[in-house]
Amino acid sequence: MKAVVTVMLKEGVLDPQGKAIGHALGVLGFTGVGEVRVGKRIELDLAETDPEAARKSAEDMGRSLLANLVIESFQVEIV
Amino acid sequence: MKAVVTVMLKEGVLDPQGKAIGHALGVLGFTGVGEVRVGKRIELDLAETDPEAARKSAEDMGRSLLANLVIESFQVEIV
Repeated sequence: MKAVVTVMLKEGVLDPQGKAIGHALGVLGFTGVGEVRVGKRIELDLAETDPEAARKSAEDMGRSLLANLVIESFQVEIV
Repeated sequence: MKAVVTVMLKEGVLDPQGKAIGHALGVLGFTGVGEVRVGKRIELDLAETDPEAARKSAEDMGRSLLANLVIESFQVEIV
């Protein structure tokens, strides 16, 4: 079973990487680009075969390692 | 219009960040974790209102800045 954990900075937290990308896109001539936010996509191959157990396990991993919950939030998707 | 560009390392390219996460999950006691792959999720606010034009624009951005096509591939989603 494959789980995808998406980790994004929380609303209101400064995203310097996103700002840098937005600036670089402007330099390259792309217009009409507003806010840019950058996050992580973590794909996990899990031996677990029950979707609900896999989701719970991936959420535990998110809370304990993958996301810094002070500044980041995460979502789990089972695919 | 919001575009989401997902950038992942191509199959077969070593992903040290993924390996580190897989190892750390094992140390934390998570079992049954196979391969871990880490990529980027880039959310772009675009002024463009036509979905097809927004997709084309985001694909241009992916090719010219967001992904290193030698080792990475990317996908665009309009949301």
